[in-house]
Amino acid sequence: MNRPSEQSPAGGFRARLHTVIFEADTPAGKAFDVALLWAIVFSVAAVMLESVSQVRLHHSHALHVAEWVFTVLFALEYVLRLIAVRRPLHYARSFFGIVDLMALLPSFLSVVFPGAQTLLVVRVLRLLRVFRILKLGHLLGQAEVLMTALRASRPKIIVFLGTVLSIDVIMGALMYMVEGEANGFDSIPRSMYWAIVTMTTVGFGDITPKTVTGQFLASILMVMGYGIIAVPTGIVSVELAAATRQHVDTQACPGCGAQGHDPDARFCKRCGTALDWTPPSTDGETG
Amino acid sequence: MNRPSEQSPAGGFRARLHTVIFEADTPAGKAFDVALLWAIVFSVAAVMLESVSQVRLHHSHALHVAEWVFTVLFALEYVLRLIAVRRPLHYARSFFGIVDLMALLPSFLSVVFPGAQTLLVVRVLRLLRVFRILKLGHLLGQAEVLMTALRASRPKIIVFLGTVLSIDVIMGALMYMVEGEANGFDSIPRSMYWAIVTMTTVGFGDITPKTVTGQFLASILMVMGYGIIAVPTGIVSVELAAATRQHVDTQACPGCGAQGHDPDARFCKRCGTALDWTPPSTDGETG
Amino acid sequence: MNRPSEQSPAGGFRARLHTVIFEADTPAGKAFDVALLWAIVFSVAAVMLESVSQVRLHHSHALHVAEWVFTVLFALEYVLRLIAVRRPLHYARSFFGIVDLMALLPSFLSVVFPGAQTLLVVRVLRLLRVFRILKLGHLLGQAEVLMTALRASRPKIIVFLGTVLSIDVIMGALMYMVEGEANGFDSIPRSMYWAIVTMTTVGFGDITPKTVTGQFLASILMVMGYGIIAVPTGIVSVELAAATRQHVDTQACPGCGAQGHDPDARFCKRCGTALDWTPPSTDGETG
Amino acid sequence: MNRPSEQSPAGGFRARLHTVIFEADTPAGKAFDVALLWAIVFSVAAVMLESVSQVRLHHSHALHVAEWVFTVLFALEYVLRLIAVRRPLHYARSFFGIVDLMALLPSFLSVVFPGAQTLLVVRVLRLLRVFRILKLGHLLGQAEVLMTALRASRPKIIVFLGTVLSIDVIMGALMYMVEGEANGFDSIPRSMYWAIVTMTTVGFGDITPKTVTGQFLASILMVMGYGIIAVPTGIVSVELAAATRQHVDTQACPGCGAQGHDPDARFCKRCGTALDWTPPSTDGETG
Repeated sequence: MNRPSEQSPAGGFRARLHTVIFEADTPAGKAFDVALLWAIVFSVAAVMLESVSQVRLHHSHALHVAEWVFTVLFALEYVLRLIAVRRPLHYARSFFGIVDLMALLPSFLSVVFPGAQTLLVVRVLRLLRVFRILKLGHLLGQAEVLMTALRASRPKIIVFLGTVLSIDVIMGALMYMVEGEANGFDSIPRSMYWAIVTMTTVGFGDITPKTVTGQFLASILMVMGYGIIAVPTGIVSVELAAATRQHVDTQACPGCGAQGHDPDARFCKRCGTALDWTPPSTDGETG
Repeated sequence: MNRPSEQSPAGGFRARLHTVIFEADTPAGKAFDVALLWAIVFSVAAVMLESVSQVRLHHSHALHVAEWVFTVLFALEYVLRLIAVRRPLHYARSFFGIVDLMALLPSFLSVVFPGAQTLLVVRVLRLLRVFRILKLGHLLGQAEVLMTALRASRPKIIVFLGTVLSIDVIMGALMYMVEGEANGFDSIPRSMYWAIVTMTTVGFGDITPKTVTGQFLASILMVMGYGIIAVPTGIVSVELAAATRQHVDTQACPGCGAQGHDPDARFCKRCGTALDWTPPSTDGETG
Repeated sequence: MNRPSEQSPAGGFRARLHTVIFEADTPAGKAFDVALLWAIVFSVAAVMLESVSQVRLHHSHALHVAEWVFTVLFALEYVLRLIAVRRPLHYARSFFGIVDLMALLPSFLSVVFPGAQTLLVVRVLRLLRVFRILKLGHLLGQAEVLMTALRASRPKIIVFLGTVLSIDVIMGALMYMVEGEANGFDSIPRSMYWAIVTMTTVGFGDITPKTVTGQFLASILMVMGYGIIAVPTGIVSVELAAATRQHVDTQACPGCGAQGHDPDARFCKRCGTALDWTPPSTDGETG
Repeated sequence: MNRPSEQSPAGGFRARLHTVIFEADTPAGKAFDVALLWAIVFSVAAVMLESVSQVRLHHSHALHVAEWVFTVLFALEYVLRLIAVRRPLHYARSFFGIVDLMALLPSFLSVVFPGAQTLLVVRVLRLLRVFRILKLGHLLGQAEVLMTALRASRPKIIVFLGTVLSIDVIMGALMYMVEGEANGFDSIPRSMYWAIVTMTTVGFGDITPKTVTGQFLASILMVMGYGIIAVPTGIVSVELAAATRQHVDTQACPGCGAQGHDPDARFCKRCGTALDWTPPSTDGETG
């Protein structure tokens, strides 16, 4: 019987807390979210600065204090979030609940394992929630279009990655045999690392073929990589075009329910019923 | 009462000046623009040459003189432009007004800060105006198509850059922990620089992972970068196709003025009026 | 007279063997395929581990034994496969038959040529069969779409590779003349290797131009490579869009059997029979 | 009065010569072209081999002889071609005429300037003619589709290259100021070379930023290059889709002349006239 308890004093406090922490409609809620946003940014910046040796040398103490202040603040916020929701366990096991917890743990871990505080950068993922709350929703709408495009191409992408991995294993073994340890290809795993560096056209140059056969094989791999890079691009283009089209053509005919009208169609192309016409907006603005 | 004053002697002079400096319809105007184009090209070339140490050693004086001659000429031109327009402040605050001023300042700055004259290369941006004036307008039309395509994808691009930045921060921190200062990953910012070099498939090779874990993480990052490179390409392809289509379908219905008909439509899809049908032409020739 | 012999005892045994080895419909068949999958994975992993010098030092004997155990198992399996099919020669000359044999030979070769066992990684290709058998068919369906896209673009890709090769030969010769042996361009074949490394935007940096002319030529090559990389991507995008479209429009007209209707067509475009219309579904879900 | 002279003895000889040298319809013509193809391949291979120092050391004389034999043969062929055509000057000034001459000159040049024979690799361009003659016409059809796609995008590509050049000049100057000669950025032209290496994602790593500001600027340039690489790909995709479509939809309605029917349409979508229907073939086979 959760419903009635919402009107109880405790429920009223929880509802207000929920409004402040989880929503951004009220002034208090908005202020909380903006403060949280900056706290996250400063906290991540502090972790980054601490890794720079000159800064660490001179401001080690200040950064250490800042880190713990942020950790205590975020811990408090985490507890408040647990209180504010009606089903704390449900929140704790959600994606954002886990991210919120993971953003605290490294500080405590660093007491036992020095250096673990570097992991505090996962706090950057918390920005995702703040963006959502601050009504930058049209951006998340676009993110959804991108995710739809990527999800629809998943089977194609798995096939593609499988092909890349097979080529990687075979080329890695071939180069290990041809070039050998003398030229830096000192194991198949390392050769596979080189093959990925080459096929993705990154090309660090830390390991390079020295023999004529090796350079010939590498040339073939590079031209193949050149062609292979075309495949994911083609997949995403096609799916993105489909996802964008779907996103736009959501108007259903009031007469027959048909969809897929041109964005500026005034009459249903199936049955001629007048559509509830609004001036066509650009793709970006509808998202 | 600006209008009448245009017929006054001063206004007539200003109008003539305006025609010469801002237009390219008259022989004088065209000559002025062509001279300006070459002055810009030579001026930028002089700045480049001065940076080459052998040239600087032997021709330092000549280049110094050339630089100041161009600066005085461009300063004169700037003053004339201010005189030629009716609202000097409006021009001074426009994009091209600011570029024109910025193309002068580095010379004067170099008196106080030696080396500042390198900034004179911003003069290259002045070419944009000259191109416009010389009626290379069809190129600017294409630039507009490209800009439309990019502007329409802005929300998608922001989401995309946000994702790239998040991956960059987290991978940078991970590699800093895994590889450490001994292997060149001596701070999170530097690790982030490495992660961007890797994800964009540039791969300088000035910093490279040495440990097995590091090379494994790098491999994952590279394959991800491989897929991520597909996203902007897909976005631009889709928007460019849309922008090109819009650009082509410019035939307006003689009955109701509606645009955006299919290239082979014979009747207006809004009001049914017969369109003045011509066989569809290719994309490129109308652009 | 093969048919009747299928009901004979020997034929019955062969049919059962065939069901276990070549199919995955029965529990025994599925168990066999899963066991085979893991055997392949472990066998390839063993070859990889053997190439790591530290591992080889300490576990050389164990890995050697494992390699021969897998070889004997796969040889047994190969013989069983030959028995299980009605036309052994036909199987032996098929793609998978050759792969199965090639997955055995390197072990025997390594007796004569030490190191040849590295070639055992071709066993990774055997995974293709197991994927097919384990009914990951929707992935192979996607692979087919990709292959259709690539096959349809074959003439375009040949022209493209011809162009790349011509540019490669000419740029290689030019750079060999301009840079010469002092800067690492010590033969035309090596210069061609450099030109491919550059054009594909891999950029190892093991050979780089040092002269001003060389760097200028390299800049032109890079910008050209930048544009050239667009061609295969464009080709694959276009063909993939065509292949996906074909894949989706599988609805046959109940009247005349014609296919290839628009996704939202209600009537056959050949004979006018009403189609069994369902709302168009997304690309990804049908794949 | 050229026509009648074709039947004269000299004209008959010229016609026969023309058939053998310029066509591949007769057995003699085909044999000539195949021989020419191999002569070109061997001649280019000889030039390449001569550049390898070990080969040059031991086979210098043989390669020198081969080079002159090929040069004499190609010179003879050039003279025969001049004789075989009715308007020798017209041929000499055509693209293939110039290539044929350029394929001879380097040998003679090498007498005066040792090393000039490397330019003999331009002979690789002569293969283009042979391909045409050997009726690999469907490949050239595809080449035409690609060229149409590229030509249609020319204005967009010029705008694009202009943008790349402007960014290159400005980034080159900035990096020269920020990094300076100590870090390898020792002149603006060299910095521009670095900026192109970076923007095209080649990333040799021969020059890399060492300062924090420089690495930050480089990161921005790389992410920009990441986005910029999307533009030519998008352009080519869109134009290629248009060129492919045009290539396929060439059937005009016999009733009203309308074009742009679906490849498998049997009736004109405008006026209902039956089209001269042939089964739809795949894109690749029609090219």
